[in-house]
Amino acid sequence: MQIPYRTYLTEKEMPKQWYNLRADMKEQHAPLLNPGTLKPLTTEELYPIFCEELCKQEMDETTRYFDIPEEVQEYYKTFRPSPLIRAYNLEKALDTPARLYFKFEGNNTSGSHKLNAAAAMAYYAKAQGLKSLTTETGAGQWGTALAMACAFFGLKLTVFMVKVSFQQKPFRKAVIETYGADIIASPSDTTEVGRAILAENPDTGGSLGCAISEAIELSLKDDSCRYALGSVLNQVLLHQSIIGLESKIAMEKIGEYPDIVVGCAGGGSNLGGLMAPFMQDKLTGKANPRIIAVEPASCPSLTRGRYAYDFCDTGKVTPLAKMYTLGSGFIPSPNHAGGLRYHGMSPILSKLYHDGYMEAVSAEQTKVFDSAIMFAKVEQILPAPESAHAIHGAIQEALKCKETGEAKTILVGLTGTGYFDMHAYMQYNDKTMSDYIPSDADLQKGFDSMPDVE
Amino acid sequence: MQIPYRTYLTEKEMPKQWYNLRADMKEQHAPLLNPGTLKPLTTEELYPIFCEELCKQEMDETTRYFDIPEEVQEYYKTFRPSPLIRAYNLEKALDTPARLYFKFEGNNTSGSHKLNAAAAMAYYAKAQGLKSLTTETGAGQWGTALAMACAFFGLKLTVFMVKVSFQQKPFRKAVIETYGADIIASPSDTTEVGRAILAENPDTGGSLGCAISEAIELSLKDDSCRYALGSVLNQVLLHQSIIGLESKIAMEKIGEYPDIVVGCAGGGSNLGGLMAPFMQDKLTGKANPRIIAVEPASCPSLTRGRYAYDFCDTGKVTPLAKMYTLGSGFIPSPNHAGGLRYHGMSPILSKLYHDGYMEAVSAEQTKVFDSAIMFAKVEQILPAPESAHAIHGAIQEALKCKETGEAKTILVGLTGTGYFDMHAYMQYNDKTMSDYIPSDADLQKGFDSMPDVE
Repeated sequence: MQIPYRTYLTEKEMPKQWYNLRADMKEQHAPLLNPGTLKPLTTEELYPIFCEELCKQEMDETTRYFDIPEEVQEYYKTFRPSPLIRAYNLEKALDTPARLYFKFEGNNTSGSHKLNAAAAMAYYAKAQGLKSLTTETGAGQWGTALAMACAFFGLKLTVFMVKVSFQQKPFRKAVIETYGADIIASPSDTTEVGRAILAENPDTGGSLGCAISEAIELSLKDDSCRYALGSVLNQVLLHQSIIGLESKIAMEKIGEYPDIVVGCAGGGSNLGGLMAPFMQDKLTGKANPRIIAVEPASCPSLTRGRYAYDFCDTGKVTPLAKMYTLGSGFIPSPNHAGGLRYHGMSPILSKLYHDGYMEAVSAEQTKVFDSAIMFAKVEQILPAPESAHAIHGAIQEALKCKETGEAKTILVGLTGTGYFDMHAYMQYNDKTMSDYIPSDADLQKGFDSMPDVE
Repeated sequence: MQIPYRTYLTEKEMPKQWYNLRADMKEQHAPLLNPGTLKPLTTEELYPIFCEELCKQEMDETTRYFDIPEEVQEYYKTFRPSPLIRAYNLEKALDTPARLYFKFEGNNTSGSHKLNAAAAMAYYAKAQGLKSLTTETGAGQWGTALAMACAFFGLKLTVFMVKVSFQQKPFRKAVIETYGADIIASPSDTTEVGRAILAENPDTGGSLGCAISEAIELSLKDDSCRYALGSVLNQVLLHQSIIGLESKIAMEKIGEYPDIVVGCAGGGSNLGGLMAPFMQDKLTGKANPRIIAVEPASCPSLTRGRYAYDFCDTGKVTPLAKMYTLGSGFIPSPNHAGGLRYHGMSPILSKLYHDGYMEAVSAEQTKVFDSAIMFAKVEQILPAPESAHAIHGAIQEALKCKETGEAKTILVGLTGTGYFDMHAYMQYNDKTMSDYIPSDADLQKGFDSMPDVE
């Protein structure tokens, strides 16, 4: 059988349930802590922040599968199934015996996989009778995705966009506005936390952690409003499991199973979703694929962070999570392009990495863009800077196969397209793009911002 | 059978041949004329401009099907098949009994259907042993598409980009450069024709007609270089027939046939491709679908132009073509967004329209964007301004069905995405977008630029 360039599931084959990785984990990650009492958080304590169904999903350690609501399944059909692409041209260019498969989540207007979780969050908010949501966005994919889902389900949305992205990406802002959402550069003078951060550092380019604080503050002012977060959370990994579930079915259709699963890692939303059913096989002893997280050298939470309790935001209003973190005070260098700029990492991914189920590597920006442009030319898809990390990691593995002669099957998360990241590509083309590897002293500043909680 | 949201062909089902509409036309369009002698052009006279195989395709009136070269078929697999989308959500929003199908050609990095023809042109150039191509681009889709195809097949490319687009779309320029092409704002001081136009009108925003002249001038200086054009030509309609052929097979799979085929029309590349096999049915008496071209009110070649011989470029170096034209001196108002700004129309489409096989309507920009944004919200795809004309036209037909209660099947060409057209969406969002309908006096200026040839 000649494996096609693109494998799509039929509507009948599409998953009807999300998979909750926690149900198969040998040990759970440490509980979220109430930032005031430092006691484990209850589901009810989360209700003012997220809508109720999402709070339940967030805390659930035992339910293996959650039904995808009918309305979300219908909504998914506007942009799913996504293709599993056999990268024949890249294999040829690398002269590798490896078989490279890219699960391509970027062929929708948000340009990324973020729409999978946005769909669920907008739907559950609407179902609960809420009127509006708030959120933050860094590179802009999540803000766009939630704006699209809110337009579809009929909710208002306010997006706090990290200021440096807001300034670099006027067109990303325009897409979000076209879908009817309000957008505010963060830090802003519209919230207490924003004003405090501006008072201390008026020229800051902002950070995801800060934008999260602002979005939560705004949502808490209105009982018909809740906050939504596009990464890090358990609920996000649950919704994103659709990526891995679809990938697994598609690979079964063509008689494949990955030896290696590669994804980029910022907060963990993509890799967490892509790897979910393969990690399940690993946890249950059915198979033993290598699972590799590729993160930017400029924001290396897994490879150089600490595994400890930390705040999820700069304003320190969120629950404490035990995770790999650079400290909520860590702000990546402004020369860092695209997303993957969050100080922490999904508690689930952190725990699995800590327990040896996953590997992590970091990559420098210019090398990542070398790989992105090679990929763009041979596979004809211009990747997002985030996705380029996964491409870069996969290319390294494919080149190892070339040396050893092993025909490994590599599954890669191609999370999105770079159409709204041309600022970064222009820097690369102009040779003004630089690398940044934080010194130990730089990292220490972030670590100093962490709470002293065991 | 529940018709899926998205219908894809399998690789086996994909067309292996392009369809040449001319083989079934009752009467051929008037021949191209040599601009010097005013005698019908021979195939050989075109060799200095286009590569040889393309010249033969351009002039062929009898070969019904051309084999798609194996290499082009392989290349197509990097972005084809494209989905046929059943617009359930739009139908619901319009409360229409009509069934709306969108053939979505925008899910590739060029953002449009233009890659179908770019693939063929780059391949044939490479196969002939050429080293480079030149071209022009207006909104930027064609330039991007040809840059991608040239990167894939290993050719150099120089793109003359209409100055107003060059200035409005720095990121479009960046994509073209990322794929390794050189890009020059037109009119430029790098060509004689550019310098002459600048001397006469230093502040001009440029036009496609002018950029064509510059690209041809550059290509004629180097015997290993040829020129490539992404619309208007017979060869382009041939390559773009893949859109219609795929659509027809997909519709057969779900038991449908269109009562109405709607496409936007600038130079004719998209509608010509989409309608091809349906026009064949019409010409051969097998079926009688209505075929509707939707053009901008600001550049109304079919609805207000003249059917006459005209130059294809502003510099008057190209052959003369008999077509609906506003005169090669016509330059659309700068407030016109996106493509569909060419002064003429494909000779094939012009002839079919003249002979009553097609209808044409024009639409004002702000109304087109009203439709675009409605579509973006319910179908979750942000369309290109060009495609929005087709969406707008289809919505009008669907609303007529609502009045009459007829459940017509409407096939629409969703040529591309608007991700690089956010400038226009920003104007719409800010309510600074305006309409422009040229006065008869405005049009007369363009008509005055036309040659006096019968």
